[in-house]
Amino acid sequence: MSRTSGRDSLRTVGEFGLIQRLRRQWPTSSPQVVQGIGDDAAILQPSPGQQLLVSTDVFIEGVHFDLAFQTPRDVGFRAATANLSDIAAMGGNPLYLLVSMAIPDHLPITNVRAWYRGLQEACSPYQVELIGGDTSSSLHHAFLSLTIMGTIQSNRSLTRNRAKVGDHIYVTGTLGDSHAGLHVLRTRANTRPRVRLRRDEQWLAQRHLRPTPRIVVGRLLARQGIAHAAIDLSDGLSGDICHVCKESRVGAEIWATALPLSSHLRTFAKNNGVDPVEFALRGGDDYELLFTAPSKYHQKVCDVAQKTKVSISCIGTIQPKSFGRRLRHDQGRTQTLKKQSYTHFR
Amino acid sequence: MSRTSGRDSLRTVGEFGLIQRLRRQWPTSSPQVVQGIGDDAAILQPSPGQQLLVSTDVFIEGVHFDLAFQTPRDVGFRAATANLSDIAAMGGNPLYLLVSMAIPDHLPITNVRAWYRGLQEACSPYQVELIGGDTSSSLHHAFLSLTIMGTIQSNRSLTRNRAKVGDHIYVTGTLGDSHAGLHVLRTRANTRPRVRLRRDEQWLAQRHLRPTPRIVVGRLLARQGIAHAAIDLSDGLSGDICHVCKESRVGAEIWATALPLSSHLRTFAKNNGVDPVEFALRGGDDYELLFTAPSKYHQKVCDVAQKTKVSISCIGTIQPKSFGRRLRHDQGRTQTLKKQSYTHFR
Repeated sequence: MSRTSGRDSLRTVGEFGLIQRLRRQWPTSSPQVVQGIGDDAAILQPSPGQQLLVSTDVFIEGVHFDLAFQTPRDVGFRAATANLSDIAAMGGNPLYLLVSMAIPDHLPITNVRAWYRGLQEACSPYQVELIGGDTSSSLHHAFLSLTIMGTIQSNRSLTRNRAKVGDHIYVTGTLGDSHAGLHVLRTRANTRPRVRLRRDEQWLAQRHLRPTPRIVVGRLLARQGIAHAAIDLSDGLSGDICHVCKESRVGAEIWATALPLSSHLRTFAKNNGVDPVEFALRGGDDYELLFTAPSKYHQKVCDVAQKTKVSISCIGTIQPKSFGRRLRHDQGRTQTLKKQSYTHFR
Repeated sequence: MSRTSGRDSLRTVGEFGLIQRLRRQWPTSSPQVVQGIGDDAAILQPSPGQQLLVSTDVFIEGVHFDLAFQTPRDVGFRAATANLSDIAAMGGNPLYLLVSMAIPDHLPITNVRAWYRGLQEACSPYQVELIGGDTSSSLHHAFLSLTIMGTIQSNRSLTRNRAKVGDHIYVTGTLGDSHAGLHVLRTRANTRPRVRLRRDEQWLAQRHLRPTPRIVVGRLLARQGIAHAAIDLSDGLSGDICHVCKESRVGAEIWATALPLSSHLRTFAKNNGVDPVEFALRGGDDYELLFTAPSKYHQKVCDVAQKTKVSISCIGTIQPKSFGRRLRHDQGRTQTLKKQSYTHFR
């Protein structure tokens, strides 16, 4: 098989040429992968005592990403993070990735490989292996669909439906950065001549382009039996807490002043005359974890934060269902916490 | 949760409303599905002694399907069959399906459910469960990506790389029908006023719209250790035999006169002045199985055909690699068998 030339396109290389290249670019090494990409299906040998986790996510050009201000590598990285984050939210160990992709067929093959490099870059800290995929031409826009598989020790997974009244509600990292970063990137893409980003804007943009899945935190929370329920913040806090409350049949009080806000988001909010708390509540795609844990485990939660070097903030408490979902401000005033997340179909 | 109204769209129901409806439409019942759709990931409990099979396929409007002559239910059915067929080609037992879908968000929710009904219709003979998915809006075209998981007894799977010199080459069913059916459907869609299809055309159209995955045949071939190698005919015989030969490092002789042709394809070919053998060699998407088996197992192959009521034809032999891939005509004349399949990127 010849090396990739800059003039090669999907049209000239074909799907099977692409598979050959991917086998070299992203080889499998795990003995549990009996058969990787290239046959009708991958063959896996599951480990005894473990349960399997499987999740799929779809990413559409013009809906989930915009090649005007994201490179194919950026898109691959973010998509893989979103998919990895689903495994993190279950407390699992990500292992295998399947990639379905459709892109206009005149694009150079180097472009396709850039998508895969982004995917691989996000996956490599966790030794996730590429075990399957399907690649096709599309008429106009690019589509990407990822399926991730992982494992977890039997009956240790963190689901959305086990939050208990009295639990503390925690989140990792800082909230709203990604949405602010998206705003920065979009504004810059529409500004002529191009302006240089300030340092705080650059940081926010990076939080959008290169988010971190909280695999290590999730794994510890599950393994040590600390958390009752967990979800990753993909739709935004106000929407995602709603899923936990509905599935667990509970209510929640969120403390506005306890929401972890980065100094960069505060600067951005000040410069743009917006409320950073709104960004924290509504901004999607942070890929931080939200979890609930009994108050007696507060020290254990602090230990996880210290061990993983990921900040973890207590932002509220689980309440009876009749309480509803409320946001408490610092003067004691409370208001109904409306679901105002980014959702599709609008 | 209210029932679906004809006026509901993805926009009004939202992704979580859709999940609620799908949980009712396609409930999971297997004890091995610890958690189905609705959380960050599905949780599965693998059976000891079994290996897992996983495969993903992508389907793009305008590339793989055309809503001018296929209903959403047709598209769902065909897509599921293509995905199920990958498990059939490994000799496995299909169990779980994940569905990624993106469609223009103004479409009525009944339209989305029709896609799922087609998926469910194709999956229900095998009790395949829906365990995950992601649904999004798209700007213009519809996009579908399926991931299927199945199981197989350890080390029993049928791969492409184990064909041996001297093996007979077999195919199930008849070849070329689907491609002829596509031709019939396309021609009719472009003809005004609409013409009524003749009986043979109707049959071919159905072979395109409602193909059968050869799950039962594949399962018997694997369980009884009959086949050396197998692949499903998705690209067309001339291309798919090429994959087996390359992966197994062998050659092949295909007998033109032994190719199983339906009487309907012969009638179609006569009426349209085309060669039915060309349709059998090049036509993709038949989803029949091609497999190789030692000649001593010929009777066992016949027994499988009789038991499953699926015709199985011997169409050639595996040869040394130096032989190449050749097509033998009835007068003994042979020609190089060129890969002339339907492939994407052209």
